[in-house]
Amino acid sequence: MIIKGDIAYTPSPQELVTIEDGYVVVGDDGRVMGTYSSLPAQYTPATTGTLTAPTLVDCTGKLVIPAFNDLHTHAPQYPMLGNGFDCELLPWLERYTFPAERHFEDPAFADHWYRRFVNRMWRVGTLRFSAFASMHTEATRRLMELCQESGLRPVVGKVNMDRNAPEYLTESADDSLAGTEELIRWARTHTPNVGYVVTPRFVPSTTSELMRGLGELADRYDLPVQSHLDENPGEVAWVRDLHPDIPTYTDVYDRHGLLRDGRTIMAHCIHLTDHERDLLRDRHVFVAHCAQSNMNLSSGIMPARRWLDAGLTVTIASDVAAGQDPAMNRHIVQSIEASKIRTLEAKRGGNDGQASQAGQISQAAEPPLTLPEAFHMATKAGGRFFGTVGSFEPGYDFDALVVDEGENPLDLPVADRLERFVYEGDDRWIERRYVAGREVPEPFAQDTGRAE
Amino acid sequence: MIIKGDIAYTPSPQELVTIEDGYVVVGDDGRVMGTYSSLPAQYTPATTGTLTAPTLVDCTGKLVIPAFNDLHTHAPQYPMLGNGFDCELLPWLERYTFPAERHFEDPAFADHWYRRFVNRMWRVGTLRFSAFASMHTEATRRLMELCQESGLRPVVGKVNMDRNAPEYLTESADDSLAGTEELIRWARTHTPNVGYVVTPRFVPSTTSELMRGLGELADRYDLPVQSHLDENPGEVAWVRDLHPDIPTYTDVYDRHGLLRDGRTIMAHCIHLTDHERDLLRDRHVFVAHCAQSNMNLSSGIMPARRWLDAGLTVTIASDVAAGQDPAMNRHIVQSIEASKIRTLEAKRGGNDGQASQAGQISQAAEPPLTLPEAFHMATKAGGRFFGTVGSFEPGYDFDALVVDEGENPLDLPVADRLERFVYEGDDRWIERRYVAGREVPEPFAQDTGRAE
Repeated sequence: MIIKGDIAYTPSPQELVTIEDGYVVVGDDGRVMGTYSSLPAQYTPATTGTLTAPTLVDCTGKLVIPAFNDLHTHAPQYPMLGNGFDCELLPWLERYTFPAERHFEDPAFADHWYRRFVNRMWRVGTLRFSAFASMHTEATRRLMELCQESGLRPVVGKVNMDRNAPEYLTESADDSLAGTEELIRWARTHTPNVGYVVTPRFVPSTTSELMRGLGELADRYDLPVQSHLDENPGEVAWVRDLHPDIPTYTDVYDRHGLLRDGRTIMAHCIHLTDHERDLLRDRHVFVAHCAQSNMNLSSGIMPARRWLDAGLTVTIASDVAAGQDPAMNRHIVQSIEASKIRTLEAKRGGNDGQASQAGQISQAAEPPLTLPEAFHMATKAGGRFFGTVGSFEPGYDFDALVVDEGENPLDLPVADRLERFVYEGDDRWIERRYVAGREVPEPFAQDTGRAE
Repeated sequence: MIIKGDIAYTPSPQELVTIEDGYVVVGDDGRVMGTYSSLPAQYTPATTGTLTAPTLVDCTGKLVIPAFNDLHTHAPQYPMLGNGFDCELLPWLERYTFPAERHFEDPAFADHWYRRFVNRMWRVGTLRFSAFASMHTEATRRLMELCQESGLRPVVGKVNMDRNAPEYLTESADDSLAGTEELIRWARTHTPNVGYVVTPRFVPSTTSELMRGLGELADRYDLPVQSHLDENPGEVAWVRDLHPDIPTYTDVYDRHGLLRDGRTIMAHCIHLTDHERDLLRDRHVFVAHCAQSNMNLSSGIMPARRWLDAGLTVTIASDVAAGQDPAMNRHIVQSIEASKIRTLEAKRGGNDGQASQAGQISQAAEPPLTLPEAFHMATKAGGRFFGTVGSFEPGYDFDALVVDEGENPLDLPVADRLERFVYEGDDRWIERRYVAGREVPEPFAQDTGRAE
């Protein structure tokens, strides 16, 4: 397939490649063969090798960009989207989130709302994601089935919880592990396009025994892991109380085998010590930066520039529903906005209460995120979790969005049009969606009830 | 007219009144007569006085809320929406904004884009607003005509600029005043529902002579005034250089007769001295708080709680296009988010670089905005600028939105449903729009080109 349009992608954080009236050539294997400003002769039908009679998809005048990869979202929180913003993390869990997730013990409720969730991911152009389900094994199975049916390629995990939560949302460690292993094995044959991700909710909700069992499962089945880390000061203190023998929150995960090298996602990572930062870097952990959620729950602002400078892999994520927007472009914007506030904080010398060094920290010390950087963090940086995903370099899976922005009143170049889509666009602008080279039609459209 | 639905409004910042399956009774004069949880006998057709055979508009299951009032938006920046976020205020003006506003010297461009702007205001439920036009008299006239035709009831002003801007966007003080007075007189007969607001761009762009002339016009014709104030430190320093004899930026406006008591809007108001804060309070100035714009241009975070505590009238505004969202609900959310960051800053003792008092400032010192407070700031607080607007108390103009949120999965009470609309809703949720008791159909729908 050859797709013609106004191409934009970020092979690196500093580099936004744009090709107006360009071409992406996609092989039968669904991978990008190359991008071109004019179509090379070898891709005409007569001379193609692996391509037989390539289809030309003409998206002239429209943006063609990598689809979004959202490494931190809570599928069972979709029904509570937009509510509960009057408290911080720990009361928020007790007051809103645990009661909301409880509903997923009802299979009909789970089916109903997971259809809507998956439809919404498709709508907003998030074609791969890493989702927490609930602790309910059957509901999680349903979510994975629906994802497999939809054409999207996320990973999903049943949430493991055996302490410090309402009894209706906890199980014994044994039951939690059994349900997890059952799903892992089931998924291998039933959901080839939907991987399983081992999902301890966070340290306070999973005993050592459970964490150790999960680390073992992840190792045995060679699976990725996801959890939360250093989001809120009260949470950090709680972890210290629960594990006084372990120096840091990050070390708790590490000692239970849950920081699998290059295969782990940790959400938030705001209040890291230098040691934790280095440990995350050494384990090649994917940091899921959730700026909107962090503002909503008064968790603080993660210093994205400092973590990037320290060599961490930082991605942008939605954290539905502590984040109220499923749409990743809004999170790109909010991450940039948060980084601008952070830059001003750093200039003033503020640094989470440390001694002021006003005047000594230059304006350049913590420059804000640029649009290419943030776009990279929402596409290629998180895409690496799934493989060669999130860019249009040769060999990358062709995951893409075709975006129709409507009028272009100021005759903007492609880079500015991308910025406009990011800042101002919504799902109505997205015309087509491709996963691994295949166009994905709208899943479960008849179930959404209303145009959201 | 009697409208039945799930009523919500904020008669005061601390009070969200909700009436599930309630009624708003609207008189023939377009004003609210009362809200009720069940329809009183006197409003049945047989016994009505001022009402003759009231229409019942049945919006059962839908939210009925006051429409939004946006006291700070730049209509000619609508075509540049979503662009230009890589610099601070002063370079942003030079690089993006002045060139964009230049296009409005072309009457066809102005007509085309002002139709879209007005349509967009209608779509997002902003039924009254105070808009900066451009310095072009004819384009401004066109905007006022279109507004008059649309059924919305904004105020609009030609922007006065005679210094420190490109020559294509400046005029002599005389020409600027003449164009202004011409529009003022013309509007009185041609746009009865669209008032004129005297609009010096900001001190750096208007000489003393021009400011004085504008103050005089505002006084002679008894008109409101709008401008910008204390948005960016570089701007504040510039004003000091331009007027070294005048103690503060606010005093510059005041000394030129531009702080008309109870009839003035000042946007941003971030970097106020205590004296300026008190002066704004004494003049009953409407502060237009533009949290999103302030983040985008790295201007800082306006300390909303401190200004509210000091007795200022603080409203929420969009500042299109330094703010990228026309939709006021998003600005309600972003104002709350900004206030949460501000609360954390204040806790740490940070106060724009002042000596740290960590530990002495309690968490309660600057609590964040609540949803009712922020909703009040986007409806009633700014509504007062237009008269008795922005609430459903008796005597208030019935400006309202009917909102269909679709499914209510967790059987939420009305207050939570309002929160959900604010955090998660978009223009697609808004079903009906009323201004002064009359339903306003979509203006200029055929011109929008695309579904935005």
